[in-house]
Amino acid sequence: MLQFELLATEGQARRARLTLNHGVVDTPQFMPVGTYGSVKGVLPSALQAMGAQIILGNTFHLWLRPGIEVIRSFGGLHRFEGWNGSMLTDSGGFQVWSLGDMRKISEEGVRFASPVNGDKLLLTPEVSMQIQHVLNSDIVMQFDECTPYETGGRITTEGEARASMELSLRWARRCIAEFERLQNPNALFGIVQGGMFERLREESMAQLVEMNLPGYAIGGVSVGEPKDDMRRIVAHTPRRLPPNKPRYLMGVGTPEDLVEGVACGVDLFDCVMPTRNARNGHLFTRFGDLRLRNARYKDDPRPIDETCRCHACASGFSRAYLHHLDRCGEMLSPMLTSIHNLHVYLNLMREMREAIEQQRFAAWRAAFETDRRRGL
Amino acid sequence: MLQFELLATEGQARRARLTLNHGVVDTPQFMPVGTYGSVKGVLPSALQAMGAQIILGNTFHLWLRPGIEVIRSFGGLHRFEGWNGSMLTDSGGFQVWSLGDMRKISEEGVRFASPVNGDKLLLTPEVSMQIQHVLNSDIVMQFDECTPYETGGRITTEGEARASMELSLRWARRCIAEFERLQNPNALFGIVQGGMFERLREESMAQLVEMNLPGYAIGGVSVGEPKDDMRRIVAHTPRRLPPNKPRYLMGVGTPEDLVEGVACGVDLFDCVMPTRNARNGHLFTRFGDLRLRNARYKDDPRPIDETCRCHACASGFSRAYLHHLDRCGEMLSPMLTSIHNLHVYLNLMREMREAIEQQRFAAWRAAFETDRRRGL
Repeated sequence: MLQFELLATEGQARRARLTLNHGVVDTPQFMPVGTYGSVKGVLPSALQAMGAQIILGNTFHLWLRPGIEVIRSFGGLHRFEGWNGSMLTDSGGFQVWSLGDMRKISEEGVRFASPVNGDKLLLTPEVSMQIQHVLNSDIVMQFDECTPYETGGRITTEGEARASMELSLRWARRCIAEFERLQNPNALFGIVQGGMFERLREESMAQLVEMNLPGYAIGGVSVGEPKDDMRRIVAHTPRRLPPNKPRYLMGVGTPEDLVEGVACGVDLFDCVMPTRNARNGHLFTRFGDLRLRNARYKDDPRPIDETCRCHACASGFSRAYLHHLDRCGEMLSPMLTSIHNLHVYLNLMREMREAIEQQRFAAWRAAFETDRRRGL
Repeated sequence: MLQFELLATEGQARRARLTLNHGVVDTPQFMPVGTYGSVKGVLPSALQAMGAQIILGNTFHLWLRPGIEVIRSFGGLHRFEGWNGSMLTDSGGFQVWSLGDMRKISEEGVRFASPVNGDKLLLTPEVSMQIQHVLNSDIVMQFDECTPYETGGRITTEGEARASMELSLRWARRCIAEFERLQNPNALFGIVQGGMFERLREESMAQLVEMNLPGYAIGGVSVGEPKDDMRRIVAHTPRRLPPNKPRYLMGVGTPEDLVEGVACGVDLFDCVMPTRNARNGHLFTRFGDLRLRNARYKDDPRPIDETCRCHACASGFSRAYLHHLDRCGEMLSPMLTSIHNLHVYLNLMREMREAIEQQRFAAWRAAFETDRRRGL
């Protein structure tokens, strides 16, 4: 089930309440990524404490490890990983696509060799729906082909993007049929493709909207395209999707990208950036980014950001200490910095929700941009 | 400062209260090891939640990284690492000794090349005292030479063990002089050496007791000797130390070793085993050990130990989930298993303290041994 209630709007920005089988998600919202059934380095209780309402799981990875039978025996991914909030699973399409030369795409689906044990596998729209049914995620994503921005340095042509987009539409219909056959009680989202071509995006949208799905995602961005192209698509597509349904911008992005996405009418985001960058010593703050490995921090007694209320900053862990832990390869560094970065992302969304509710999103955005440029 | 108040005894086992500059330590007690200023994979707040009262830091490691000037600028290791409880630091002796061929021991101290950057360094009793003064640990360990059990397969002779023990005694006197010159307000412990030879241990003890230090450690065990030799020394040395001072058995050990140590009159223990073994999927429980990597756990829905109240078990994380996380190299596995193993160790000490208070330690020990053999 899925209910979507628009609570406030300002320009294209929307504040809404999304109700799923495992509870309420306040949007705009960011979804931490839990590839293998764990948000890397963060305890579920810590995610809950920082206000995460929905996390993401990866169909492709969980299919390979631990395998579907294990998760089936737990009645789904929620109980397997001990997460009581909401959950979205991707379709596996992006991951098989990312295998590059190791996979072969046909009308039927994608054939590939398991990177874990070399097994020959076939992922199809039907298989993706079957796996996600076992995972019992609250939001199921259609199996699609992610249209590349370029292949070996050659930018995708409109003809190629059209063929790819049309394949994704045919796969969407097969996904719907299988989803219904399985009587999956959750919500299936369609994915708008069309590469960097507005008219293809519009064709994709028109056909997906006809399928009357409960939510729509914007796919095929954040795949290596120039920032201007991404902005163009984000400014184009979300606002043209049905206003009474949630919109999810897949795999995006930096804090600035999230703010721009919200301004363009996006409700949901996911990205590995807060956790992956944390592990690489790249910290986000209200006042710009901090590169923890910079030698200037080796004796800096200040927390990452004195104004931040995450566990790492509020407990007073210093930049010097985190720099030291990172340098020594101590696990505590990614543990604390992942908490910090996720807190920053989740807090950013909270501030945007409040600003839209109070019709001051434009002013909030101007202050956000000034703050981010200020530096630490 | 150090106060030591014996509250109860049963046979050789002692229940006491140790008061240090950063608070009270209830003994018998286990000290989690925080080599680089962090107990690997465990947040300080989690350590506190599980009742840890004192943790260990490593002089050698912290001297190399982040270096003493950084820690001095924080006023000591407590504030640097955000730990408000008590802290013990080793002298660095064991670590330089472990460098093997890369170091040269003389009367003056130990010369070695830094494994971090190749710098030629000299660690002496005086330098160790100076570093530990900056670390401001509540318990400072004397700089000693750890007598090896064997060298290249050849067991240490009594003559070699005597020479080593006498060097450690001369170093103890230099440590005391430097500790006093620095006006270190904390407590300096001496270390009994003497290898596997009771009469050398007795000579070492007699001279250390004459130095009237506030506490004593038993060193040179858990260095590769057969278990019977370790038991023999643990049965011999602790009970001969002054009853009104704390006794610390260095680097020991398994749950069984801890129980035996307490039965022999030991008050303090430290060991990397709970955290290191956790990272290798070796879990301790009341009912025996569990090897998480065993394929039998891949779909086991039970927590590590249903009777355990650690965060991992109480939250219901299953063996199947932990097995999966470990297999995928997910950080959450060592995070949860380190919490579990440390909880088991700290809880074991708590149970022993209560049993001694209530004069039922012998019965408790019999039940412990039966439980441990029961299997999961």
